[in-house]
Amino acid sequence: MPSFKFTVTHRDSETKARTGILRTAHGEVETPVFMPVGTLGTVKGLTQESLEELGVQILLANTYHLYLRPGEQTIREMGGLHRFMAWERPILTDSGGYQVFSMAALRKITDEGVQFRSHLDGSLHMLTPARAVEIQACLGSDIIMPLDECTEFPTSAVTAEKAMERTIAWAAESQRVWRELAQQDGKAPTENSKNQNPSSKQNPISKTQIPNCKEENSEFQIPDSGGTSLTARHEVNQAGPGTLFGIVQGGTQPELRRECARRLVEMDFPGYAIGGLSVGEARPLTFEMVEAAEGCLPQEKPRYVMGVGLPEELPQYVALGVDMMDCVLPTRNGRNGLLYTSQGRIHIRQVRYARDPRPVDESCGCPACRRYSRAYLRHLFIAGEMLGKMLNSAHNLYFYLDTMRRIRQSIGSGSFSRFSLDFRSRLQGEVP
Amino acid sequence: MPSFKFTVTHRDSETKARTGILRTAHGEVETPVFMPVGTLGTVKGLTQESLEELGVQILLANTYHLYLRPGEQTIREMGGLHRFMAWERPILTDSGGYQVFSMAALRKITDEGVQFRSHLDGSLHMLTPARAVEIQACLGSDIIMPLDECTEFPTSAVTAEKAMERTIAWAAESQRVWRELAQQDGKAPTENSKNQNPSSKQNPISKTQIPNCKEENSEFQIPDSGGTSLTARHEVNQAGPGTLFGIVQGGTQPELRRECARRLVEMDFPGYAIGGLSVGEARPLTFEMVEAAEGCLPQEKPRYVMGVGLPEELPQYVALGVDMMDCVLPTRNGRNGLLYTSQGRIHIRQVRYARDPRPVDESCGCPACRRYSRAYLRHLFIAGEMLGKMLNSAHNLYFYLDTMRRIRQSIGSGSFSRFSLDFRSRLQGEVP
Repeated sequence: MPSFKFTVTHRDSETKARTGILRTAHGEVETPVFMPVGTLGTVKGLTQESLEELGVQILLANTYHLYLRPGEQTIREMGGLHRFMAWERPILTDSGGYQVFSMAALRKITDEGVQFRSHLDGSLHMLTPARAVEIQACLGSDIIMPLDECTEFPTSAVTAEKAMERTIAWAAESQRVWRELAQQDGKAPTENSKNQNPSSKQNPISKTQIPNCKEENSEFQIPDSGGTSLTARHEVNQAGPGTLFGIVQGGTQPELRRECARRLVEMDFPGYAIGGLSVGEARPLTFEMVEAAEGCLPQEKPRYVMGVGLPEELPQYVALGVDMMDCVLPTRNGRNGLLYTSQGRIHIRQVRYARDPRPVDESCGCPACRRYSRAYLRHLFIAGEMLGKMLNSAHNLYFYLDTMRRIRQSIGSGSFSRFSLDFRSRLQGEVP
Repeated sequence: MPSFKFTVTHRDSETKARTGILRTAHGEVETPVFMPVGTLGTVKGLTQESLEELGVQILLANTYHLYLRPGEQTIREMGGLHRFMAWERPILTDSGGYQVFSMAALRKITDEGVQFRSHLDGSLHMLTPARAVEIQACLGSDIIMPLDECTEFPTSAVTAEKAMERTIAWAAESQRVWRELAQQDGKAPTENSKNQNPSSKQNPISKTQIPNCKEENSEFQIPDSGGTSLTARHEVNQAGPGTLFGIVQGGTQPELRRECARRLVEMDFPGYAIGGLSVGEARPLTFEMVEAAEGCLPQEKPRYVMGVGLPEELPQYVALGVDMMDCVLPTRNGRNGLLYTSQGRIHIRQVRYARDPRPVDESCGCPACRRYSRAYLRHLFIAGEMLGKMLNSAHNLYFYLDTMRRIRQSIGSGSFSRFSLDFRSRLQGEVP
């Protein structure tokens, strides 16, 4: 789409690190960027105001979860995911493939797609490459991921190759559907879709009265005071589907990773994700796969490694030429009381913090560190209070975002390698 | 204490409603005031920043809970509850009596006090009138409640009278201890206390090394970077104990309520609470008890009805001359998806809100209504997302606080009765 553009602004002289700007229909994103995960249209424990204050530029939402609950039709009628969750900045959605593989109760993969049962109610669903694109178009996502086949670790080269071939075939099908939707400029992007698997148990309307997007669009009655929603829906339709990335698979076989990257590049996607990593393999192997794929990807396109990483790994991925990352770790670990600091990790439950009046990280400018003590955060955690999870999540997410800011600054000022070395060595220290 | 002062600023001509200003060591409070409940030093689901933005003037914390976890010594060492929880505005603490009666696993009441087992770990504790005051002095509370004996509903007149007599005796003992502490100006307010029941399982120090406040004060080592804490502790000590209120008991016997009030007034407390209400009795009976007690309380002192009420009851209590109220309802009901609006209640889980793009209350200025739709809040609630509880709690608390603001304004402008009538009739309407 014309609204998507990526520009590299600086290149590091010693590594493949670079800074850039991603332009989307919902604004610009400075890269390298970390995207927090808002599975169900909310980053757990944080308001959208907090996300803005923390400096979140773009967030990730999960297609599988939103498809099941509240259903993409509900979100579409509410004006798309941005309006539904009241978030005006860019959103990237995954295809749902990874969640189907890892969460659904029962799944059967064929060349056509994936049949699975919902982890919520056991209801039967079918996800195809076309449906995955259509659902994400309904959501109004800025960056859409095609359905891909993830493999477990370890996986044989034969299995990895089959999954790669299917991923490439699905990428082609996704692209075909995406182009159809994009050509229907000003119309509903999912007009041709067959919604054979109504999405939400919570909303009986979507099971009975709305067999597909077209009928739903023509039949749905906007409430009297629903002017906002109407406008928003119009916007979603006008914009057409978000940008479709390709996803490089290939297990832990460098050859397959290279081949997959080359064949996707021939299909000319505006950006490339590297998927199926950080699924149990040793980190050097992860980096090797990223390097293998990256070597075959065009310099002028953004690269996104899905589902990574630990704080100390962030500069390492950037050094390999990665522009985008996402991970649940900052918020999930926050909820579990594991806090990241510039000096290493803190398990806030430990008794050593019970009477510690200092902030979690004295060099941190996050809302938790600006106001609250370790003693208080420990008390909240031990007592199981929501505020503990909220503040811990805010702190960890700020730490990730701040690290990315520093990475971008260091690339811009030619000091990335030094920053990276300093950063990683400090993280290995003992927290005082 | 010289830092406490109550001034009536306006009186309603048709009811006993009045506005006033409570001056405390932590600032002024406009009355009538609603105090949200921050049981464990946090109002569930809300940051202290949010509380400030919502307009919370004073909050209530629970002595029983904080005594058990993290323990009043920990809080004292952290500079008192204000500093511990990073809340600079006034705090009122209850005596712990009500929680002991309603939550503790096993309790034995004698004239000396209450022996009970912790609901957390079954450990044995003793709460006496003296200890209750001392603990609250350790917390640095602005307004301290004496230990009282609550009775269940229904209760015989004989039982209610015995509990009332014990409550009055304990009030006298509390006042004696409080005066001792207040005279030790600049010294530790709990210097004479015998901490026979170290408080926290979480903090082994308080069980073994700190038999009482005095030793703890002399032995505790402030960490190198603990300057903030040291200063804060000094402040807590300098200020002396907070203001001690009396609590009117007497079950549902108007005669006992009057007698209790008269005898407490003879003891000259700076403010009077009316306790043991809203425990299952019909609301007219509650109001009758408040009226009975109020008639015997001095006009120039603040009156606080503990643990009330529903939104529609707020103006009713105010009309009876009540200046202060507290209740868990706004936050607890928020977490359970019951939302208060100017038009009545909303159960946000209902399917009718699944695609409703309007805010919860179109006339509401709270952070939830300013940004998020009913559809989104319903989705968050159904999905069990923390953000749903956070936003619902913020909305309900704002509704309570805003109602109190309007009550104060209407008293000031001589339109309280009209406001009260309008407000209550609107709440009975159907939410559109």
